Amino acid sequence: MIMNYKTHSGYKRMMQMKRKNIFWFVAGFADGESSFSMSFAKQKQKDGSVKWVINPAFQVYQHEDNLWFLEFLKNEVFKTGRIHRKTSPYSVFTFSIENRTTLHDKIIPFFRKYRLATKDADFQIFAKIISKIYNKEHLTYKGFKEIVDLAFKMNKNGKQRKFTKAQILKGVKQQLLNAR
Amino acid sequence: MIMNYKTHSGYKRMMQMKRKNIFWFVAGFADGESSFSMSFAKQKQKDGSVKWVINPAFQVYQHEDNLWFLEFLKNEVFKTGRIHRKTSPYSVFTFSIENRTTLHDKIIPFFRKYRLATKDADFQIFAKIISKIYNKEHLTYKGFKEIVDLAFKMNKNGKQRKFTKAQILKGVKQQLLNAR
Repeated sequence: MIMNYKTHSGYKRMMQMKRKNIFWFVAGFADGESSFSMSFAKQKQKDGSVKWVINPAFQVYQHEDNLWFLEFLKNEVFKTGRIHRKTSPYSVFTFSIENRTTLHDKIIPFFRKYRLATKDADFQIFAKIISKIYNKEHLTYKGFKEIVDLAFKMNKNGKQRKFTKAQILKGVKQQLLNAR
Repeated sequence: MIMNYKTHSGYKRMMQMKRKNIFWFVAGFADGESSFSMSFAKQKQKDGSVKWVINPAFQVYQHEDNLWFLEFLKNEVFKTGRIHRKTSPYSVFTFSIENRTTLHDKIIPFFRKYRLATKDADFQIFAKIISKIYNKEHLTYKGFKEIVDLAFKMNKNGKQRKFTKAQILKGVKQQLLNAR
């Protein structure tokens, strides 16, 4: 179903707001409804080898009833990102930005200006890691380990992680040795 | 444990913000993390009879880690309300305002000025009901029924309600007949 969200009464109302008020509103909204995450995954390469990768993401979740607001965030506030339906629960949509350059150039400056409240500590770590990745520090073991250490301090010390710190670091060490 | 939340770094940082920016931030935060509810309950009277009552509430929930932010809302933004720990889940606190005059005089004007996005439709119904209660319209069956009809349109048509519309209306009708 294709819908023009710009005709939604809420969307139209928000378009009447001053940009600055919108930005502070969005900061408050994101403080409750968004997440900054830094996940680690094993990515299989064409040659059969495995490469450990860092996947940073800024995400906002909303029930499908409020999809118009995610469209508003995408089209009018951040002017980037993508929206997709979750597989579970199916009624929820995610607005996400995963591109590192976009995170570095747009998202980090946004939340430096429009500061978060309850999520600020996680955001600060996230910003630090994005800066390290931007400076290619993750390409050395020392740099990668610093990033892992920081990432594990995020989101209540990473209770929902798929891999342990030891698993990731062992894998990365091996990978860098192999690459020599 | 008594803690002075005013020394929390987040609390102190927010105190540096312009009032207007705080208010828009709080509107955005409330859009995701608050609820406007209108519940109906049977209240046993001293004489043994039962009286149907309307309990309006504005509530914001937060994990205990972010209790400082609820304290900020209570002390610096709304300057009223109470904070209490939930029984389940125990790690969550609620900031709530249930006083009808406070809702009428403070909360409704606040969210009329700092408009919500995804929760605006529920808020508008809530405000309408508070106005009716303020004008004592709930003291007649006609007025009470209008309020019940409106309330059942809130929060996805009141899926989590304890009593059906028929149960409430039957009870109220009886109560008003008995009071004659």
